[in-house]
Amino acid sequence: MDYVVPIDEMLFLMENICDVKALNKYSKYSHLDIDTIRSILTAIGKLSVQKIEPVNRVSDLSPPKIKNGDVVCSPGFVEAYRAIAGGGWVGASASSEFGGMDLPMVVTSCVNEILGSACLSLSLNPLMTQGQIEALEAYASSEIKSLYLPKLTSGKWSGTMNLTEECAGSDVGALRTQAVPNDDGTFEISGQKIYISWGEHDLTENICHLVLARLPQSISGTGGISLFLVPKFIPNGSESLGKRNNVSAVSLENKMGLHGSPTAVMEYNKAKGWLIGEPNAGMSAMFTMMNNARLGVGVQGVSQAERAFQKAAEFARFRKQGKSIINNGFGTILDHADVRRNLLTMKALTSVSRCICLDTAISSDFAKLSGSKEYYAKAAFLTPIAKAFGTDSGCYVTDLGIQVHGGLGFIESSGASQLYRDVRITRIYEGTNGIQAMDLVNRKLADNGNAAFKIMKDFERIEQNCLGAAFFEKDAIQEFRTARLDLLNALNWMLKTKDVNERYAGAASFLKAFSLVLGGYYLLLAAETSQDLERIELAHFYLYHLLPGVYAATKSACRGSQSIYKVKF
Amino acid sequence: MDYVVPIDEMLFLMENICDVKALNKYSKYSHLDIDTIRSILTAIGKLSVQKIEPVNRVSDLSPPKIKNGDVVCSPGFVEAYRAIAGGGWVGASASSEFGGMDLPMVVTSCVNEILGSACLSLSLNPLMTQGQIEALEAYASSEIKSLYLPKLTSGKWSGTMNLTEECAGSDVGALRTQAVPNDDGTFEISGQKIYISWGEHDLTENICHLVLARLPQSISGTGGISLFLVPKFIPNGSESLGKRNNVSAVSLENKMGLHGSPTAVMEYNKAKGWLIGEPNAGMSAMFTMMNNARLGVGVQGVSQAERAFQKAAEFARFRKQGKSIINNGFGTILDHADVRRNLLTMKALTSVSRCICLDTAISSDFAKLSGSKEYYAKAAFLTPIAKAFGTDSGCYVTDLGIQVHGGLGFIESSGASQLYRDVRITRIYEGTNGIQAMDLVNRKLADNGNAAFKIMKDFERIEQNCLGAAFFEKDAIQEFRTARLDLLNALNWMLKTKDVNERYAGAASFLKAFSLVLGGYYLLLAAETSQDLERIELAHFYLYHLLPGVYAATKSACRGSQSIYKVKF
Repeated sequence: MDYVVPIDEMLFLMENICDVKALNKYSKYSHLDIDTIRSILTAIGKLSVQKIEPVNRVSDLSPPKIKNGDVVCSPGFVEAYRAIAGGGWVGASASSEFGGMDLPMVVTSCVNEILGSACLSLSLNPLMTQGQIEALEAYASSEIKSLYLPKLTSGKWSGTMNLTEECAGSDVGALRTQAVPNDDGTFEISGQKIYISWGEHDLTENICHLVLARLPQSISGTGGISLFLVPKFIPNGSESLGKRNNVSAVSLENKMGLHGSPTAVMEYNKAKGWLIGEPNAGMSAMFTMMNNARLGVGVQGVSQAERAFQKAAEFARFRKQGKSIINNGFGTILDHADVRRNLLTMKALTSVSRCICLDTAISSDFAKLSGSKEYYAKAAFLTPIAKAFGTDSGCYVTDLGIQVHGGLGFIESSGASQLYRDVRITRIYEGTNGIQAMDLVNRKLADNGNAAFKIMKDFERIEQNCLGAAFFEKDAIQEFRTARLDLLNALNWMLKTKDVNERYAGAASFLKAFSLVLGGYYLLLAAETSQDLERIELAHFYLYHLLPGVYAATKSACRGSQSIYKVKF
Repeated sequence: MDYVVPIDEMLFLMENICDVKALNKYSKYSHLDIDTIRSILTAIGKLSVQKIEPVNRVSDLSPPKIKNGDVVCSPGFVEAYRAIAGGGWVGASASSEFGGMDLPMVVTSCVNEILGSACLSLSLNPLMTQGQIEALEAYASSEIKSLYLPKLTSGKWSGTMNLTEECAGSDVGALRTQAVPNDDGTFEISGQKIYISWGEHDLTENICHLVLARLPQSISGTGGISLFLVPKFIPNGSESLGKRNNVSAVSLENKMGLHGSPTAVMEYNKAKGWLIGEPNAGMSAMFTMMNNARLGVGVQGVSQAERAFQKAAEFARFRKQGKSIINNGFGTILDHADVRRNLLTMKALTSVSRCICLDTAISSDFAKLSGSKEYYAKAAFLTPIAKAFGTDSGCYVTDLGIQVHGGLGFIESSGASQLYRDVRITRIYEGTNGIQAMDLVNRKLADNGNAAFKIMKDFERIEQNCLGAAFFEKDAIQEFRTARLDLLNALNWMLKTKDVNERYAGAASFLKAFSLVLGGYYLLLAAETSQDLERIELAHFYLYHLLPGVYAATKSACRGSQSIYKVKF
């Protein structure tokens, strides 16, 4: 089935969940109305369906190939990428000063979801460049900005993030890549980086690597890491490229999915680099980029969930099998309760994950526009949830998608399995979901829970509103209340527990519990404001069938490491 | 890492969970002692590690190929299969009258788990033959038995199951394959069957297909289906093969995993077949075969879970990353609470699934030996649970295995992803797990819940025993009690709910809830009888972190179709 771009749904959520109209209060977005956003999403949607989606399956079958360090991408990728770049989409959120579209992140997140639904592996390329643009906007010198940003926003050049080394993955601080100062203010970068998405390819004329490395005499650990920009070709001013830098792709990984995206081992051998930001402050610069990248990865989860849901629903609408209990026995498998339960779970989790991502995005927009600490804190708090729950849901929904297809789901030509394979990496890269959970219960609760309590106030408010709304089943709202109170207990447990490892033992469960209640909140909010019957029933389903999971998640969250360290392995 | 065959664990469970010694009461097994079982498992273990495991990865990379209907298997498969057949393992549970080993199913299940851990795709071939042997032993004429069974038990010939057609998957009754009687008592079989595991290959000199087809004038639906034996080559007596039958593989599927196992579309064009059992009684004959096949598929789930757990634990023992909170910061990722939680979850679910499968197997052994209706009912009740929970756990544990590996888990050479891809089909074939759940809440509760209540009595007994044992934490046993009572409520709800579709809406959740409590029971039983510290702590972990999932599962199980049919798709 063709991918149907969920534009109406996105617009609905922007208006009813995100209060996108409040952006108009700021001069930068005083003219950004829903019609404009609709036309933006319509444009990227059309391009995605017509030019991007058609290369998705072929890239799975024909991954990029490497020969002497050069990478030839999957068939059709050059043209498809040019369509993205030509539309200006790489610079969607970039400053117009350097050729960007200056869109708020909430709109860019929808753009990214649409591109991801069309072809996840290709869409990862502009996502990486977006992060680089953001880091350079925030930390680079004006010379670097004016030289690099126009090329990056136009998509003529692309960007990568180089963090991981063989012995430095989740523990970035263990990295060994060296940066030695040259006399002219540049640096010689030497070392090997692994798992570099789009580290080498033939889609752009230049590839700009943001590389974490250590200066001589810098301390070990994350406090001694600096950030460098290392272009594949060294620019001679803005109009021509000079000599090839000493950086190359040594090999490409053979992965379970995301075949179209070349994942390279990159070798830096006295490559010329430019310091970005202050010496030894590379981690914080990288985190600027990484926070949006984490949101972006959460959106990748949503993109695959949406695609999987559409595919499974379409299959169920047409597949006849067994006597259907309703429709006088003449219906399709859509009439079977178990199939419907799977589809409802897929639909609800896709919607919830999208809401979390969009709310994270607009909170970061409001934070930047207003400078409000509360919005910064909200965006920071929601980011690990968006990343982890978005990608967990992506994996779970694509898994259910296979199940709805039955035997066909295991056959590659169905496309259901590609979604399942492609999305699996999203729970690992940009910080594993375990790392996200640890971030949530450590740094993101370090404000005495202020950000969390503020969100929980919203939960309480919607609960009260819904208890007074006749179109909700009281039992369902009671389920929400039960879950909310369990979560409140768990939050208080986390705040009073000083030993961080006790919190870490329950971190993943706490993140899950918070996400589930958050999901109930968004679905209720959407249902309550719209009074739309379909939304009310989706919320009911979620509250009855999925939200009770909060009980187990909070139990596990508050158990600490009590029974974690006693069994030997 | 090499696969380490969990022989001690299997023997422990057989003695402490399954009461394997009670088999000695029956003359057939009066001499089967633990040492004998140990030597049997040691033999299949040695063979699996040395000859089967080495072909697993290569078969993933080099799937079988088809040319003009002939299938050439993956490199090394011919030799590996001969090692299995040569050891007599195909006939592990077959009657010694026809050359089988006459082992009880509880031992054969361990044999099958070991073969599956070594190479799931190859092990599927003897599993299919085992099912065919069982069906022929039960339903075939003595001529057919004496001609076919020695060839099948020795592994010289192999067997397949042919149920599915393009429009008849879960709904077998919709099949269209025709069987027309010949004058000589044989039949002409015509039609197309899909998803036929090992339907064509070059491992054996003959392939025997058990085919469901409809006789002329038979009614539509499952009541008009008969079972036929259709050999690829028609035997001229027992010593030579005659002419090629009109059956051939049209194509092989390109699957997400299980690449080494050729999945064929089979075309029957007036192929010569022999009726097995009574006309129009094909479904019940097929179910004889299918019940053990369902248990066998549950065991496949266990086999991949075990392998994934071993791989992940080994990785975690050596991988250093980040400052470990215990061991003065010098440990490996095994010291991180989140990694340990994943490994404990993997270990607990693998153990629970194995217990369920072994208890199902020995119940079926006791049923056959004693003719006891209670044991038949217990085996029947546990079979859908063994299949669904075993394979759900297989998928979940292999998924966690990838996560423990971090980025490496997504790289094919790690082997973690192959387990994840291979095991995915087990939740679909031999009846999707949704179908298993529907079977559980319909046919398997049709005895007024007698079989279920009998098992729940065991839960109550262990709870009482454990409350009195000082080495258990009271809180943990309290968790068990809470879960047991929730399950009891759900069981009573299922029994009092007459509308089958109301039960179906909660079927998958009910199966999950029952499995989780069953898991707590087995882990407590193992811990209580052994008083082994490791088992006690594993049980504690499970009761605190996984068992609380029963709350959500029972809530969902008892909700009925209330909010299932209102949302449109």
